[in-house]
Order: sequence, then structure tokens, then C-alpha cells
Amino acid sequence: MSSGTINVSVENIFPLIKKFLYSDHEIFLRELISNATDATLKLKHLHSIGQASGEYGEPQIEVSIDKESKTLTISDQGIGMTAEEVEKYINQIAFSGAEEFIEKYKDQQGEEAGIIGHFGLGFYSAFMVADRVEIITKSYQDEPAAHWSCDGSPNYTLEEAERTERGTSIILHIAEDSTEFLEESRISELLRKYNKFMPIPIKFGTRTETLPKPEDAKEDDPAPTQEVDNIINNPNPAWTRKPSDLEEDDYKQFYRELYPMQFEEPLFNIHLNVDYPFNLTGILYFPKLSNDLNMQKDRIQLYQNQVFVTDNVEGIVPEFLTMLRGVIDSPDIPLNVSRSYLQADGAVKKISSYITRKVADKLKSIFNDDRDAFQQKWDDIKIVVEYGMLTEDKFFEKAQKFALYPTVDGDYFTFEELTEKIKENQTDKEDKLVVLYASDKDQQHSYIEAAKGKGYEVLLLNSPIVSHLIQKLESEHENTTFTRVDSDHIDKLIQKDEEIASVLNEEEKERLNSLMSEVIPSEKFTLQLEAMDQEASPFTITEPEFMRRMKEMQKSGGGGMFGMGNMPDVYNVIVNTNHELIGKILATKTRKKQERLINQSLDLARLSKNLLQGEELTRFIQRSYDLIK
Amino acid sequence: MSSGTINVSVENIFPLIKKFLYSDHEIFLRELISNATDATLKLKHLHSIGQASGEYGEPQIEVSIDKESKTLTISDQGIGMTAEEVEKYINQIAFSGAEEFIEKYKDQQGEEAGIIGHFGLGFYSAFMVADRVEIITKSYQDEPAAHWSCDGSPNYTLEEAERTERGTSIILHIAEDSTEFLEESRISELLRKYNKFMPIPIKFGTRTETLPKPEDAKEDDPAPTQEVDNIINNPNPAWTRKPSDLEEDDYKQFYRELYPMQFEEPLFNIHLNVDYPFNLTGILYFPKLSNDLNMQKDRIQLYQNQVFVTDNVEGIVPEFLTMLRGVIDSPDIPLNVSRSYLQADGAVKKISSYITRKVADKLKSIFNDDRDAFQQKWDDIKIVVEYGMLTEDKFFEKAQKFALYPTVDGDYFTFEELTEKIKENQTDKEDKLVVLYASDKDQQHSYIEAAKGKGYEVLLLNSPIVSHLIQKLESEHENTTFTRVDSDHIDKLIQKDEEIASVLNEEEKERLNSLMSEVIPSEKFTLQLEAMDQEASPFTITEPEFMRRMKEMQKSGGGGMFGMGNMPDVYNVIVNTNHELIGKILATKTRKKQERLINQSLDLARLSKNLLQGEELTRFIQRSYDLIK
Repeated sequence: MSSGTINVSVENIFPLIKKFLYSDHEIFLRELISNATDATLKLKHLHSIGQASGEYGEPQIEVSIDKESKTLTISDQGIGMTAEEVEKYINQIAFSGAEEFIEKYKDQQGEEAGIIGHFGLGFYSAFMVADRVEIITKSYQDEPAAHWSCDGSPNYTLEEAERTERGTSIILHIAEDSTEFLEESRISELLRKYNKFMPIPIKFGTRTETLPKPEDAKEDDPAPTQEVDNIINNPNPAWTRKPSDLEEDDYKQFYRELYPMQFEEPLFNIHLNVDYPFNLTGILYFPKLSNDLNMQKDRIQLYQNQVFVTDNVEGIVPEFLTMLRGVIDSPDIPLNVSRSYLQADGAVKKISSYITRKVADKLKSIFNDDRDAFQQKWDDIKIVVEYGMLTEDKFFEKAQKFALYPTVDGDYFTFEELTEKIKENQTDKEDKLVVLYASDKDQQHSYIEAAKGKGYEVLLLNSPIVSHLIQKLESEHENTTFTRVDSDHIDKLIQKDEEIASVLNEEEKERLNSLMSEVIPSEKFTLQLEAMDQEASPFTITEPEFMRRMKEMQKSGGGGMFGMGNMPDVYNVIVNTNHELIGKILATKTRKKQERLINQSLDLARLSKNLLQGEELTRFIQRSYDLIK
Repeated sequence: MSSGTINVSVENIFPLIKKFLYSDHEIFLRELISNATDATLKLKHLHSIGQASGEYGEPQIEVSIDKESKTLTISDQGIGMTAEEVEKYINQIAFSGAEEFIEKYKDQQGEEAGIIGHFGLGFYSAFMVADRVEIITKSYQDEPAAHWSCDGSPNYTLEEAERTERGTSIILHIAEDSTEFLEESRISELLRKYNKFMPIPIKFGTRTETLPKPEDAKEDDPAPTQEVDNIINNPNPAWTRKPSDLEEDDYKQFYRELYPMQFEEPLFNIHLNVDYPFNLTGILYFPKLSNDLNMQKDRIQLYQNQVFVTDNVEGIVPEFLTMLRGVIDSPDIPLNVSRSYLQADGAVKKISSYITRKVADKLKSIFNDDRDAFQQKWDDIKIVVEYGMLTEDKFFEKAQKFALYPTVDGDYFTFEELTEKIKENQTDKEDKLVVLYASDKDQQHSYIEAAKGKGYEVLLLNSPIVSHLIQKLESEHENTTFTRVDSDHIDKLIQKDEEIASVLNEEEKERLNSLMSEVIPSEKFTLQLEAMDQEASPFTITEPEFMRRMKEMQKSGGGGMFGMGNMPDVYNVIVNTNHELIGKILATKTRKKQERLINQSLDLARLSKNLLQGEELTRFIQRSYDLIK
């Protein structure tokens, strides 16, 4: 038996780093600027504990392109490195300098704990886009500057340099296949994407600023201008500040910073801020959801210590909240792991339920503090709330207190208020509370009017997932049933013990029945003769609740009963035998005239339910023109 | 100046491999089975060139779980390794054995070129899920077996082993945080996902097979059974075979293998097969597109040498073809790169345009060979074809020959045929060819009937992107304009030089105009009095083409004019002054009766265009019941 140590062959690992380190080569810039930021924050920390001499000043990071020499340079004014430190941190791949630093100063951790960053392999990502990389660095300590250079083979050179200012410059000699990174527009895009909120100012080029005219200037004199540093980032974004230091306008201002292409203001915001048992800050916004295609692009952004990571927060934020916008910043979310791993991770689970709770609490407090404002926003937020109620039981519980059920007349009830309001008039003979609703005020207008005529409240429930939500509400609230206004005729929507006497006798009823059965096609409609209020419509078409709801649930994905989505629609024709028109039809002499009356009435009933279309509608219209002509 | 070699510290690289090598830990199984497959294919190759003695036999790969000892074992009967080879290939990370092998046998490359596979770091991915890994291996050469073991630190042991059969077993001692990989269901899921079509049979457990009853068995005797190897893969999937060896049924059978949850058969398939300048095989299917939510899940799958890579082919296949299903297998597609990199990659560009061309050629050949069948499928494929015509100019050119324009009566024309058919009757006085179309047979029924009454052909164009396609067709075909049938009244849809005499005199016209202007609300409708055919409808509501189309284009994303999506709809009311009803309205004595006639007529015109809804419809219906009562 032999034993030994696995040998990593450097000749082969370099191309592997280049190929595999990150799936996306553009990441190198984020990594190098993270390192520059860490180096500056380290210096700040040493100053704060009195371990670095000289001025801290206002250090910044500078990114510059030299197209002629094909280089991209990232310079910082941070802690710098001695030649010895270059040997230690750069020439030893995978030796994490940050860890050692933190270890040394761990007693003074505090907010500087964030500086661990993406140390380690980050620097080597430069070789994904450069075929030679130079480092010119001068430590804050009194040591000569160092110049390191490496051509991507594992061989490097290290010598003394002239540099006198503290800090580090990384010079990338961009490779042939990566010249995109010599384009100003590309670098500018990447800086905006990854570094917009990093804590140290980042300069990229200059811009021209107009100065005020001197007092003695003439009318036509051009205003004087000057070149100023173009700082691409906001080092103190709103989410890193204390909620108590922020006004409503600061949140709106930050929303515009995040989403410059969004012209609509957000409805409200939620400031997240927790230290224990995990670290998370952020601001979430409820947007005014529109059909705008840009909506999908503006998603919640995930940061770690102000470095942009991704705008795919699937698995971190509960699905129903992915419709929100804003920022989450947490070092405790594992990166580069699969969705199933994320879902099993304890910290992520806690983060997800913390966010859910904060959102519910915020909604509750707006509801309590300013119900009018909440009601006005309901239409814009209901899809999120309802989806949350369907998918997260804890959210359902909390939402019971603020979820609203609007009526067709624009009143808003909580479920409890609604129950209180309707229980007297809308409890049926079996002691069930019947909640009536419509899905479309226009299409179901005549049915809504009939129900209102009886003094019933009619809800307007028009979210795409409403059939699922109703199913859930029925199962949570015993003895409550939801019925759409067009699911039965007005006297049966809420069955009570009243019986309305028929004006027709048995012989007339039978005659009517056989006449109607012959004229109304039984493959399309199930005929029902009912003795109803004389004022109720003579003909009504209804669509039974159960079948319709099951079909809707199938169509909107999941639930319902298998195969029901493809079943034909089922309609009943209710004939009100007490209506004057029915008496007239029975009394009409010729069969032909009877049929014409029935068909015209049936067409009107179908119109009422939007079932008269195409050729049948055209013929109906022609017949109607003839009638008035 | 000093120089040196960058040192990779092994102590630190191991955790990095574990963390960063692949974002998804489950990949380890794919990697190990790829290695096992490569080892078997290498042996096959050596046999084929007479460099290995003994029987090649029918080697297979076996995956097994031992829950008690918490191990997962992957065994192959391939080429095996000597102790020396273990030293060389396993103890030296990032030393690619496959490269050397290929180098040695490069003259006999041929189809074995595929075996390079994912060698190299693949084996070490085992440490993502295991805290100890053992290798027991016996080379095909006459050397003792070797037993290697490593606990994830860089220290290993290597000793002689007892094993006598050729091949390699990798034994993973699964770590505490990865026990999911000791679950049969999880492993089975992974094998189905990544290895369903790998070229060596993979055994995972056994299954019970029912045998035929012996002749002398009694009626009640249970049929005898036996345990057989459960082979989870099909080593010779259809796309690896020659098109000439496959029947239509083989393609359908393979579709069911790929998508076991799809019950609909595909419409047709396209076999891809190209060696130069890139290597690509595959089969694409045109599915019958449905509203089924499962559709989105069944996407084109990308393989490399029969190993599943991803079902996200964005950037590889042109966007309009991502609606297709099937398999693409190519070693020439770079993995783990960004979308922008993919789009710039030369090989990928060529692959994308090859696929586009093959799809266009296939559609053309079906169109030529069996036009009836093509027409029957048109409704299912048109969205793909039309989207392709809009987004890929080369496809547009080819599609000109087979893209179909169906009429409301179910005839299908190519654009050329259509032009030929209608040019006589549908050229207007300015010599423009006017193509009439409808978007909905039911909703535009009366308008369609009117146009057909004039002998016009009316196309039925109802794809969601049709307004964009029409815009494109108009710009490609000079002097051709598309007009929807409800965009103007029948005598103006195609303007000719005919003038219809008015039956009203000037005084009557003026009286009619002021009466109509007072009754018809000008904020909703623009009034136009026209002397038309007496048979034409007395009132017609039209919606001008240009505005409507711009709004539709805005809504379906892009194009059109900025801000138009939010403009109000524009409608005209055309009053046919030659219609009998108009004379009657003028002759009616009381103003009240006149108004009633006009309102009822306007309601009928609005019904015809689906504009009468809600309360107005309810009142119209009540009025109509009263009329017949």
C-alpha cells in the first residue's frame, strides 16, 4: 500500500479556470471591482482603529480603457500590497487573504464583516478575458511598490515599481476573443449592471458640467463648462440607510434609480432590515401591475454587500412575491446552487418566511391606518394577495384580516364584514350562506341587476385565479358557498322556502312544455319551466356553477377535475311561466308565429349571456331591422 | 526582479471544487456515468483495431445503492486502470486522460472522436456529494487490480485489490448533507434526466417480468415470473440512426420516448444530420400546439454525444423554432457561456442557420408533395411560420413559397396565388391591390357577408402577431394593401370609380344630417352619410384600419407608434341614405319616434360589431321583449 497527496497540475488548471470558473466571462469586472472595494474598505477599517497612518481622504476606484494599447485598467486607492503580500495572496491560488484579515481583526468586526467579499479566485477571473495581467501596487505601509506580471502561463515576474501613491492598479491586456471589453459602451453597461450601488465611488471617464454664468456675462455668451469625474455609482443606496432617516420621497427616488425606465410610481414599499438569525436588508416595492411587456424585465434584484448578483430570486422569495420589485441584500443566501438545494436550505427558508411576514404586516398596517388608500390600491395588488393566499397558508391566515371583496357597486368588504352584511338576506333554507359574485360587470349585467333587485350583494371577482381562491375560501369557511349570478335563475340562486304560485294550470303547463321542447334544441339547452315573479325575465339562460368552476380551474392550471377542461359548456334555459309573454305565446294561433316568438325570445336570452354570435347574430339583426322598418 | 511559478495550494482547492465546480450537485452522476461510458467505448475501440485481447462481450454500466453502508456505486466493464494509470489520471487533478488517448489513436478517429467527453475534472465532482470515494479497478491489460481511496482531504491511499473482472467501480460514501442521493427515486429521476439515451446499457436494480405459462399449467395457476436487469436507457436512440433506416413509426415511437406525457402525435419531423463544417445530429418535431400548460415544459433537448445537457436551447435555435420539440446532439456547441457569447460564436451561428434552412426545406417539401396534408396542418404550424417570417429574413424568403393565406371559406392560397385570384376584382381605382381579411368569423360575420356579396375574397388571419406580419407583407409587396372587412363600409373598402346616385335630395340630406348629428353622440362616433346600394345595411359601424392596426401592434409588443396602445378606439357610423329605413325615419312625424328608430338602429349596428354591452344591452333586450310582447 502506498499513500500520497493529490497533485494539482498548474499547467492544466489555468485553462480550466478560464473555461469553468464562471459561466459568464463578463463577471471578471465585478470580481476586480469587488477586490478594489475590499482593499479600500480594509484601509478605512485600519484607519478607524488607528492602525494606519496618513490621511484616509476620499478614495475612489477608477476604471479606464486604452484602446491603443488594448488595456483595461482598474485602479484603487486602498490598502495596497507589499511584494511579500503579492507573493502570498496572488502567487498562491485559492489562498483567501480576506479570511486571514478577518481572523486578525475579528474583535472589531461590526459592519466591516461585509468585506470578506468574493476573495480568493476572483482575481484570476481576469484571465478569462486577458492574455496578460499586470499588477502595480503600493502598500499603505512604508515599503516599495511592486510590479507583478503574468501571461496566463503559470509563470510570473515580480519586480520593484516606481509608484508612490498608495493603492493597486490591475492592468488587463485584453485577449483577441474579448475585445468587446475595450468598448466604452460595454464597460459602462457592466458597471451599471453590477456596481451601481457599491460602497466606494467608481469613476469611469469624465463628463461635461455646465457652470453658472458669471455676473458680467452677456446675454449671448455661452455658459462656461468644466470636465468633472463621471461617478457611475451611488455608494449609499437607500436600503443601506436606516428607515428612520428616509422620507417617502427617498423611497420613490430610489425606485427611479433602480428602474429608470419605469414611469409609474410604486404603490408602496417595504423596508427589510434584520440582523439575526440571518442578515438581510432591502426594499421591496408593490408596483402598479400593467400589461406592459417591460414589467417582466424589472424584477427584484439580489445583492451581496451592495454587489449585484442576479435578478432571478426564484427559490429565495416566495413565488407569489416575485411580482414585486426592489432589492434584497444578504450575504446569507448561497449562490450557484440548484433550486432544490435552495428550497432545502435552512437560512433561505427563514429568509423566505421573514419576507412573507413583513409583506403581510405592511399590508395589514396600511389597511389599518388608511383603509381608503388601501381600497384604492386593491385592484393593483389583489393578484399578489390572492395568489399568496392560495399558495402560502401562513399568508392566508394573515390576509384574512385585510383581503378585500369588492362589490359591483364599488364597496369593499373583508370576509368577516361581508358575512355580517349578507347573513340575514343571503342565507338559504339549508342554512348555508350564499355569496353571489360576478366575473364581468358588462357581460353579466342583466343577471347582476336581477340579483340587486332582490337586495342581494354581488361581488365583483375578476382575477384569473378566482375560481381557485373561491374553492379555498369555501373549504376554509364551513357553510359558505359561492355562486356566480348567472349560475341559476334569480329565484333559485339563494333557495328559500317561498313558493310562487303558477298562473298556468296543469294542462297549459303541459302544452307549453311540449311546445318549448319541440322548438328549443335539446342538444344545446336543458329546458326548465319555472313559476317565477311576473317581473322576472321571460327567458333566462344559466350555466351551473359547479361545472363552470371546475372547467375554469382546469384552464387556469391545476385543480378541478381531470379532463373537465374539454367538456362542452352546459346551459339551461329557464322559462318564467308567469311572465305575460308566455301567456301570449300560448294564446298565439298559428304554430309558425309561436315559433317565431319563441326563437326571438331565445335569441334575446342568448344575447344577454353573450351566446348569440356570427351568422345567428347577423340574422337576428336583419330580422330586427325588418321589425322596425 | 524575481520570477517563479504560480503555486496552486491543494488544501484550498478541494473545497473550491466542491463548491464551484458545478452549480448543481446532481451533475456528479452524469459525470461518473460519462466516464464509465468513455471507458467502455475505449475498450470497444481497442477491440475494433485488434489491440485488446479477450471477449468484448456485452458490457454494461451498473448503478446501485446500499442504504446500510450509505454508498452509491457506479460500475463499468470497460477498459479499467492499472495502479500506474490511477497515479497518472486520478492523482493528478486536471490531467486529461482522454486527450492523450485521442492523441495516440487519432488516425483511427472516426466516430470514436466522440469519446473525449467530459474527462478531466469530472471524476472529482464525486466529492460534491461524498465524503469518501473509493475506486476499485482492473485494467484490460494483464496487471493486478488497484484500490484507491480518498477522504476529500488531498491524501489518498492506493493498494492492490482482489478484483478479477475487467472494469472500474466507483464507490461514493455519501455525505450527511447529500443523503437524497441514497434514495432510489432520486437516482432514478437523475438517470432518466441525463442518461436516457447514453450509448452503453445502464442497469439500475431489477424488475419482475411475467413469463408465458407452461403448456400443462392449470387455469388458476399464476403465470411464472423472473427477475431481469432493469435497463434504464435506450443506447441507440432514433437520432443516432440513419434516416434511411427509419420509418414514420420509428419517429413517432421516439417522440413518445422523449415526451411520455404527450398524448398528441407530432405533425411531422425533421431529421438533422450534418458532419461539416460542424457536427450535428437530431430530430425536430412540429407539435400540435395546444393551450396545454405542459407544452412549455416539453422543449427541445440539447445533448452532447448522447449525454443530456439542457433543455434551454435559447441562443442556439432561432427563437421562432423554440416552439418545436425534439433533440439536438452536437459537440460543437459551447457550454456554460453567456447568451451574448453564444450569439457571437461562429459555429453556433452556422448551426442556427442550418436548422432554419432544414425546417424551411422540410415545410417546402411537404407543401410540394402533399398540399392537402399541409393545408390541414396549417392552423397548427402557422404561428411558427409567421413568427419566423417576421424575425428571420432568410426564412421569410423561403416561406414565400409555402406560407398560406386561408379564406373564411376554407380555401388556402399562397401569396402569389391569392394575387392572381383577386387582382381583377380587388384592384382599386389607384391601381392598388386590396387584400381583405377578417380576424374573427363570428365577430365580423355581417361584414364578411357584405364583402362576399360583392364577390370579394376574405382571408381569415387570426394569429396574435398578424398585424406585424401584414405590415411586413405590405412593405415587401409594393402596391398591395391589407384592409380588415370592418374598417370601412362595403362601397369604400375597395374604392372604384362607380358613383351611386342618392335617392335623397339636398334638402333631405341636410335634414337627415342635422337629425342624426343630434341623436348620435359625437364623442363616440364620427357620423358619415353615404349614398350606397339599397340592399346594404342602413347603419354600419366601422373602425379605420390604420389606427386599429397600430394599436394592435403596440399591444402585441413592439412596432406601431409610441403611445398608440393607450389611444381611445375610433369608430365611424355610416348611414346608408339610400336604405328604405332612412326614408322612413325622415318621414316619421314625431321627433320622439324618430329618435327611437335611430337609437334602435344604432344599437343593432353596435351589436353587429360587438359594441353593445352591459346596461345598454340589458335595456336593448328589455325594449325588444316589449316590442314582441
